[in-house]
Amino acid sequence: MARRSRASRNRETAASGAPASPFIRRSLPFFDVLDEEQIEKLEVQVDWIIQDVGIAFRDDPDALDLWRREGAKIEGDIVKAPADWIRALCAKAPREFMQLARNPDRSVTIGGNNQVFAPIYGAPFVRDLEGGRRYGDMEAFRDLVRLTYLHPNLHHGGFVTCEPCDVPVSKRHLDMLMAHMTLSDKPHLGAITEMSRAQDSVDMAEIVFGKDVMDQNCVIMGNVNTNSPLLVDKVVTEAARVYSSRGQGMVVVPFILSGAMGPVSTAASVAQAMAEALMVCAYVQLLRPGAPFVLGNFLSSMSLKSGAPTFGMPEPVMSNYAIGQLARRAGLPLRCGGSLTASKIEDAQAAYESADSMHSTMLAGANFVLHSAGWLEGGLCTGFEKLVMDADRLGSYQKVLDQGLDVSDDALARDAYSEVAAGGHFLGCGHTMRNFQTAFYEPKLSDSENVESWEEVGSLDMRQRANARVKEMLNSYEVPPMDESIKEELEAYVARRKEELPDAWY
Amino acid sequence: MARRSRASRNRETAASGAPASPFIRRSLPFFDVLDEEQIEKLEVQVDWIIQDVGIAFRDDPDALDLWRREGAKIEGDIVKAPADWIRALCAKAPREFMQLARNPDRSVTIGGNNQVFAPIYGAPFVRDLEGGRRYGDMEAFRDLVRLTYLHPNLHHGGFVTCEPCDVPVSKRHLDMLMAHMTLSDKPHLGAITEMSRAQDSVDMAEIVFGKDVMDQNCVIMGNVNTNSPLLVDKVVTEAARVYSSRGQGMVVVPFILSGAMGPVSTAASVAQAMAEALMVCAYVQLLRPGAPFVLGNFLSSMSLKSGAPTFGMPEPVMSNYAIGQLARRAGLPLRCGGSLTASKIEDAQAAYESADSMHSTMLAGANFVLHSAGWLEGGLCTGFEKLVMDADRLGSYQKVLDQGLDVSDDALARDAYSEVAAGGHFLGCGHTMRNFQTAFYEPKLSDSENVESWEEVGSLDMRQRANARVKEMLNSYEVPPMDESIKEELEAYVARRKEELPDAWY
Repeated sequence: MARRSRASRNRETAASGAPASPFIRRSLPFFDVLDEEQIEKLEVQVDWIIQDVGIAFRDDPDALDLWRREGAKIEGDIVKAPADWIRALCAKAPREFMQLARNPDRSVTIGGNNQVFAPIYGAPFVRDLEGGRRYGDMEAFRDLVRLTYLHPNLHHGGFVTCEPCDVPVSKRHLDMLMAHMTLSDKPHLGAITEMSRAQDSVDMAEIVFGKDVMDQNCVIMGNVNTNSPLLVDKVVTEAARVYSSRGQGMVVVPFILSGAMGPVSTAASVAQAMAEALMVCAYVQLLRPGAPFVLGNFLSSMSLKSGAPTFGMPEPVMSNYAIGQLARRAGLPLRCGGSLTASKIEDAQAAYESADSMHSTMLAGANFVLHSAGWLEGGLCTGFEKLVMDADRLGSYQKVLDQGLDVSDDALARDAYSEVAAGGHFLGCGHTMRNFQTAFYEPKLSDSENVESWEEVGSLDMRQRANARVKEMLNSYEVPPMDESIKEELEAYVARRKEELPDAWY
Repeated sequence: MARRSRASRNRETAASGAPASPFIRRSLPFFDVLDEEQIEKLEVQVDWIIQDVGIAFRDDPDALDLWRREGAKIEGDIVKAPADWIRALCAKAPREFMQLARNPDRSVTIGGNNQVFAPIYGAPFVRDLEGGRRYGDMEAFRDLVRLTYLHPNLHHGGFVTCEPCDVPVSKRHLDMLMAHMTLSDKPHLGAITEMSRAQDSVDMAEIVFGKDVMDQNCVIMGNVNTNSPLLVDKVVTEAARVYSSRGQGMVVVPFILSGAMGPVSTAASVAQAMAEALMVCAYVQLLRPGAPFVLGNFLSSMSLKSGAPTFGMPEPVMSNYAIGQLARRAGLPLRCGGSLTASKIEDAQAAYESADSMHSTMLAGANFVLHSAGWLEGGLCTGFEKLVMDADRLGSYQKVLDQGLDVSDDALARDAYSEVAAGGHFLGCGHTMRNFQTAFYEPKLSDSENVESWEEVGSLDMRQRANARVKEMLNSYEVPPMDESIKEELEAYVARRKEELPDAWY
């Protein structure tokens, strides 16, 4: 029953022009913005940071021990290493890899020409038109997982689509994992904030996929920030020991507000981010050669008035293009960008900034795009309407990337010119009749009617239409099928761990 | 007095991070999306249309006579010509040219690596937050000319920033020309709707610039649409006889809604647009070899529900990238794109669509961008707030295009790493202090403050902030200085022509 409904829903989205593929196989060429001289200057700078400045690995003696055993130069907790060696280690990471979903039709390939869109990660607040701005909770979290599952333009579930602030921090990850694993069948990330929570994530993934599958495949990933500038703390190295040692994926992301966590320069901040991420990639390859790794970059500019981070501005747009090219040179899958904005609400500011941020993210070839939908307020708030508004636009990017420009004989439509005279129209000609249904991306939230028709149905702005769409989607939601024994095993695991763990709010 | 104020205003905009240059000298590389095979297929199609399908030149026997005399094949009113010959004629047009402004600091170079932004053209309606939607009038027109003059991110005045519907059509062009010539000192376009109106435009420009300057320079341009598919009517050829024969610029733009005025295929519509524009370029070069010509392209997709045109969608985004590459191959300056949307108001839909449309326009290398600010409702309406909202974003594009990625020694900031330790911050270091003021584009309409600060000042959305900025700008407006004798001569010309012309509303 649930299976039948799901199949019919899939047919519906395909017929309405939504992309049917579970991720993007890019046919559009990449956009290379740097010439050889620029690349060389940046790479020399990256190597200089790795060799001469060094990266601190702090509060984790095991990580420092590993570096020491492998022959790196340790000064205090600062690791310096020959850049050639670090790059050789990074070359062991796969250029692309598959992350399995529990529904095999939804498995994604990350890296190379493939691009994967996932929603916002980590906001403590949520916002919608009725409820306004409020702390995230488990109810909101589950609805966000449902919406991400339902939306054809989101390929991956991410993880902390909002912080469920009504659940103790010590147990929160268990409920979040359970929601992703049971309410959706898309791939997702796991917890990283503490080593035991990372371990719970990997252990629960093993229940879903089985040990044999997990031994041979990436089925879950952890996403962590370095502590820029030049600092890798134990959150990173411990998560890597759990995920990477088990052959699972690690996404490692220097978050640099230029002028604060990096120099007030896009070039310097991009080079620093590369150096930090490459050092962690090398560490991961020391733990387990060939472990999947995604090189992350999150660069933001700043308001001159207040020092507040700004988004969608020319400096991070440029950094997306530059880092895309550097990541391809390094042969590593890239995470960068997203539909980012500093706006508090889903207004024109939010959309301009999100579109410029995401257009550059898309063209840059970002292979894994967290924050591709739902981001408001510099990442402090997940917008329900914003999630479906952004995701509606992602379908447009997917069409550009997937299809490029079709110049097949049918696309060139020569037969149409034998039917249509100068000054005539192509509305009814054979070529149009054959191709009309699939010719155009059909957004759900853009209103293209004339002003009279638009006024007749209430002069709704895009937010109001998105609000209605959120409700429709949640009303149509059906739980994707899951083997009962697996579900029971997950429930038992969560119940046991909740018994073992104290309630803690940090 | 007025001179002094203007100079101080210029200092102010420069200090606040607004680009000071009168147009964009692009250092960012171009984005080539087509491979050789795709280019060849498109160019073969273009040549096939020129040679075998033909383009009608209708209702203008003089134009057909010229084609006949020069040896083209005429069937009825359809002109067919060897593609090699047409391309050789097009090669006589300059790859780039300067359009003088009456203030020499504001002259623009169109073509090559240069990009010029101009506002919306042709909307019968205007909209602002207080007045709502209403017919455009001369008062609104003059305010739009003032805003365009004042905005540092708009390089060119365009022409019909709205239709002044309170003035008879037969005399409207005179008042519009007078407004551009006296209320602004930026370059602008002239009238094209009738041959005598084009002539008035050129004659008034001669009053402003003098005969000698005009003999040697482009000081005004006409912007016309072909009558797609495959039809060039006398509006185009007569305007060309006035502007091109006098050595002035012509911008010729096939407007193709794929599936209506061209096949329901981006590739076919792009090829058709190229063929139409190249034929008019060749005609212009027959009139006067070397006359400045801008190859235009305006391609739109369609709603499957209603057949209404849609904007900012993947098909026109792709067409911007493709036509950019084809225009560079043809060696002709390009007009395409703009900040386009089907939204009726300045909401998130308007901004998403405008940004995706304009981001691709920008990267595509469009040399002259009409509609880069102010467009609403598929071009039927000029938004006052939309104008300054879009223009605020144009500054971001200008920074990306002008600067690319600076990898100078100062940008690499090595000295900063001697001051800042792992885990520290760069806020007060020497490199930051030296570069902070100029590091980031500073938009005027994006609010990046935290939610509490934003709520304190009234939780304004971007439209409301834009509304306040429109008022501030208009309050600060001062007429740019003009030689009194020139102004009097223009006034006398307009008075005489208004006497001669009947009031007509068509």
